[in-house]
Amino acid sequence: MKIEILAVGSELLSPFFQDTNSLYLTRRLNDLGLDVTRKTVIGDNLAELRDAIRAASSRSSLVLIMGGLGPTGDDITREACAEALDRPLVFKEELLRPIEERFRRRGKMMPPWNKAQAYLLEGAESLPNEHGTAPGQWLIHGEARLALLPGPPRELIPMFESSVWPKLREWRKGATARRTFKITGLTESEVEGHIADLYPKTQTERLTILSAPGQIELHLAAFGDENPAAAIDGLAAEIERRIGARIFSSSGEELEAVVGRLLDESRRTVATAESCTGGLLAHRLTNIPGSSDYFLEGFVVYGNRAKTARLGVPESLIQAHGAVSPEVAEAMAEGVRTASRADVGLAVTGIAGPGGGTPEKPVGLVYTALAWNGGTDVRKNLFLGGRENVKFQSSQKALDMLRLRLMGAEMT
Amino acid sequence: MKIEILAVGSELLSPFFQDTNSLYLTRRLNDLGLDVTRKTVIGDNLAELRDAIRAASSRSSLVLIMGGLGPTGDDITREACAEALDRPLVFKEELLRPIEERFRRRGKMMPPWNKAQAYLLEGAESLPNEHGTAPGQWLIHGEARLALLPGPPRELIPMFESSVWPKLREWRKGATARRTFKITGLTESEVEGHIADLYPKTQTERLTILSAPGQIELHLAAFGDENPAAAIDGLAAEIERRIGARIFSSSGEELEAVVGRLLDESRRTVATAESCTGGLLAHRLTNIPGSSDYFLEGFVVYGNRAKTARLGVPESLIQAHGAVSPEVAEAMAEGVRTASRADVGLAVTGIAGPGGGTPEKPVGLVYTALAWNGGTDVRKNLFLGGRENVKFQSSQKALDMLRLRLMGAEMT
Repeated sequence: MKIEILAVGSELLSPFFQDTNSLYLTRRLNDLGLDVTRKTVIGDNLAELRDAIRAASSRSSLVLIMGGLGPTGDDITREACAEALDRPLVFKEELLRPIEERFRRRGKMMPPWNKAQAYLLEGAESLPNEHGTAPGQWLIHGEARLALLPGPPRELIPMFESSVWPKLREWRKGATARRTFKITGLTESEVEGHIADLYPKTQTERLTILSAPGQIELHLAAFGDENPAAAIDGLAAEIERRIGARIFSSSGEELEAVVGRLLDESRRTVATAESCTGGLLAHRLTNIPGSSDYFLEGFVVYGNRAKTARLGVPESLIQAHGAVSPEVAEAMAEGVRTASRADVGLAVTGIAGPGGGTPEKPVGLVYTALAWNGGTDVRKNLFLGGRENVKFQSSQKALDMLRLRLMGAEMT
Repeated sequence: MKIEILAVGSELLSPFFQDTNSLYLTRRLNDLGLDVTRKTVIGDNLAELRDAIRAASSRSSLVLIMGGLGPTGDDITREACAEALDRPLVFKEELLRPIEERFRRRGKMMPPWNKAQAYLLEGAESLPNEHGTAPGQWLIHGEARLALLPGPPRELIPMFESSVWPKLREWRKGATARRTFKITGLTESEVEGHIADLYPKTQTERLTILSAPGQIELHLAAFGDENPAAAIDGLAAEIERRIGARIFSSSGEELEAVVGRLLDESRRTVATAESCTGGLLAHRLTNIPGSSDYFLEGFVVYGNRAKTARLGVPESLIQAHGAVSPEVAEAMAEGVRTASRADVGLAVTGIAGPGGGTPEKPVGLVYTALAWNGGTDVRKNLFLGGRENVKFQSSQKALDMLRLRLMGAEMT
């Protein structure tokens, strides 16, 4: 069974914009165990679009067309469909009324060209648009099902959910269960090494690995008529057994959200002392709503004077070991814990690059430290990548030290 | 003249990955005054890809095909092209040698299946790959030019630049000049209002407006045989005249980079005091390499105790006016300037949301302040959007106050 997505709009053929609606539609089709066969982007060009719709509807069972339903001369999807399928467009008084009403509610007259949006392909069903003037259309043409949907995501998504999704569900029984694991502290190839033999052998189960700096995601999906969740439960349990505490979330949460929840639950407070991350660690912690309950304050101690004046790091310690050293990281974490009176002090010092590296202390060398009432843990890290990557990975490591400590897991 | 881009790979039909190579190729084609007519994504399916290549090469002058040139059974682009164009694949000993050599340099034997990469379409020219094993191919077939390019950007881009670009330049004379203006402190509709009558009337000139929170970009491009730069110089000068100091960059720089350069040139230093931005302002300033020369330190004073203890903001002032007030913003900026001994103190206090708003002080109310040796400036802002948007716009406003002050422009 072939399925195609057509995105219409000349801006989608520029270097500036990209069709992202199709990612959403693909996920929802996958939920029904349906795969997309082909995606096409066409500009505001009647002949091109007509040919594309004709070809798609003659070879595929489902064709989702997005965009080009506006009221202006550029909006040619209705007309292109009419030509491609050899079906006239029929004016529908009952479609015009809600469009006029929409303008009236805003105290405006409907411009005459909006009348174009009240034309329906002969034999098509109109799909109401709660968030814009353009109604969608649904049509069965020979072996093909076609949906004409508006381009803006805030119109397309509600229309798809309320009008198209129920039809697809009826057409294709079954459901998909999903699970997402987020992992930090392992590289992509380390994760691969742990799970290489677990890749599903069937078409109805999927395991996808996504890699980003400081973070690996595993996406599991299973499709089935009866109980697809059961199909991934065993796989998910085995992945959890193998990867253990390196999994920081199995519900899609960001690391800072997990840490925030653990701080909240344990009624502990934190304060940060940052050199190379330059405020990113505090920024991430404070991205979480309600973080003022547990985040007391942060210091960005870029210069040595600030490390001494704010955190009481002895000048002699910096001179003896350098600002990027386990000794200074430890003193920063303990200093910020004392100054802020927080339960936990979290510190980062390192060389984010591109300059400042030496053979002994290369770019990417970062010490992360955590001071708590049981002592102070310090970790040495060597991160790869550019300045922003090193900053992000450093903040990720510091947050993960805090997560593991709050969970009572052994620090590794 | 029709131009098509075909991206090959089943992962590009999943909800997780998107073809981004085509944005790059589109920009480079636009540089020659060439527009893309259609983009298609096809999975690793021989029949689908064969049909797509056959259709594209019969209707278009240029077809760029990316991906599917690897050595495994999934990599079907060579074979699909052979079937579509009815041209045999010919084994080329001279293509095999660099592939074997590549493995040898890494101390490995070439696996037998990599031999598949040494097959060339009859009549095609091979394109060397400096960053991978898959050679590209270039073929003139009837009226169509076809390029087969590898999918990974670090292989595709160098191959396109060194082998395909020179052929396109020869085929299509002329060049494109570009200019990008970055603007802050105006909304998209305000910018539109300033430039609405300036949109070019010709096909060879373009003006595109891109909007993001806290920032508007204007992209100008002109294509011509002779001197396309002259065509946009006049338009650019008129835009600069109308929008003035609201333009913070005409060379693509981020705001924090512009501010960093101005601080560096004027040998001034800065320190930050942040409440609702939570470290983002310091993070952005320290994203710039070399920022340790001018960024002395930052305070994330989330709680009132920290505002008083670190910056000397009087408790009575906070009690009288609240932490989110022009008085406290002013005291924070002056306090951080004094504590850090920086030339400029920059401060932000506000309500990032989603909680914490009141009718008098709603979510999005943010005061930004700048203390310098000539006094202290305070601005009241009301930003829309979610928590991260409000944080970003607040940091953008604070950076822009610093930029304008360093330029000696009147604060507005």
